[in-house]
Amino acid sequence: MKELEDRIRRDGTVKPGNVLKVDAFLNHQCDVALFDRMGQEWARLFSGKRIDKILTIEASGIGIACVAARHFGNVPVVFAKKTQSINLDGDQYVSSIYSYTKQREYPVIVAKRFLSQGDHVLLIDDFLAKGNALHGLIDICHHAQAVIEGIGIAVEKGFQEGGRTLRAEGYDVQSLAIVEAMDASTGEITFGSREG
Amino acid sequence: MKELEDRIRRDGTVKPGNVLKVDAFLNHQCDVALFDRMGQEWARLFSGKRIDKILTIEASGIGIACVAARHFGNVPVVFAKKTQSINLDGDQYVSSIYSYTKQREYPVIVAKRFLSQGDHVLLIDDFLAKGNALHGLIDICHHAQAVIEGIGIAVEKGFQEGGRTLRAEGYDVQSLAIVEAMDASTGEITFGSREG
Repeated sequence: MKELEDRIRRDGTVKPGNVLKVDAFLNHQCDVALFDRMGQEWARLFSGKRIDKILTIEASGIGIACVAARHFGNVPVVFAKKTQSINLDGDQYVSSIYSYTKQREYPVIVAKRFLSQGDHVLLIDDFLAKGNALHGLIDICHHAQAVIEGIGIAVEKGFQEGGRTLRAEGYDVQSLAIVEAMDASTGEITFGSREG
Repeated sequence: MKELEDRIRRDGTVKPGNVLKVDAFLNHQCDVALFDRMGQEWARLFSGKRIDKILTIEASGIGIACVAARHFGNVPVVFAKKTQSINLDGDQYVSSIYSYTKQREYPVIVAKRFLSQGDHVLLIDDFLAKGNALHGLIDICHHAQAVIEGIGIAVEKGFQEGGRTLRAEGYDVQSLAIVEAMDASTGEITFGSREG
């Protein structure tokens, strides 16, 4: 998606250690008009598929998923939680992931009543690098016996293994921008494409 | 907002300890069509005010704020973070709040470059009870010398002091549903109104 690539070039920042900061428009400050066009693009990429529900994970995926849902007939968005709370009761699907940005292990929790056998699910997240968060969501979908119709990603780091692994596992992964290389010293970002 | 009250009556659950669970449509599973109509209602309630930016706090506020932003001319949504991360660098506004649902102290963090002196800000959150989260956001707005134009809340617990305190402090608080009383034994919920 050219608009997203252009935006990353303009407002993204490359930091040492393969960190790409897109907090100006994606995951701290949110450009909701951009989110809307991202949703429109995913709707095109996943057209013809039955999507009953969008599943994402707190926190950065929520805004993107909720705005995108409009383009999937306003299907419900369920966001997996990363902490237990007194508001989370009843039966739960629980998986576990390691977050590199937060540098610790997290639970991934979805109340059983919000994900059912036979639900056709679209997974949405802001970033795909090693794919840990997504594998947590996939694990939960398997427990629920839900059908994963596709995975919509805003920014994929193509030089890390997450996307390759998920595609090899047979998932329909549609990343709107794939960063093939980035250089913290020059700030240069090279995009690739796996569409089509 | 009658639709939200009806929905709380239908799909909300009252639990002992003044807990109102609305996770079927508001803060775990998200009804984005409802969020859209909530945004429309806040736009009506805050019409005539200059809103440059919507400020909320992760995680439950994000989806509501991002969908509502459409009715405020797609202004940027900034969500305060509750954990430090290697993605959060640079100068930050930091406050601290106590969460009763998570039963621990949290930092509230906003990168300084996303909130500026003279920004006219609308605060949005899913719940208002004691008002701790909102006071964290207000504290950050004061540090930034931003102008708080109003506070949009989905569900206010009118029997707790948060709304009363904020209104006494002069804030324009618009809660779409105000629960005046609830009974865990019968499940009965009584709504009030502070509009007009």
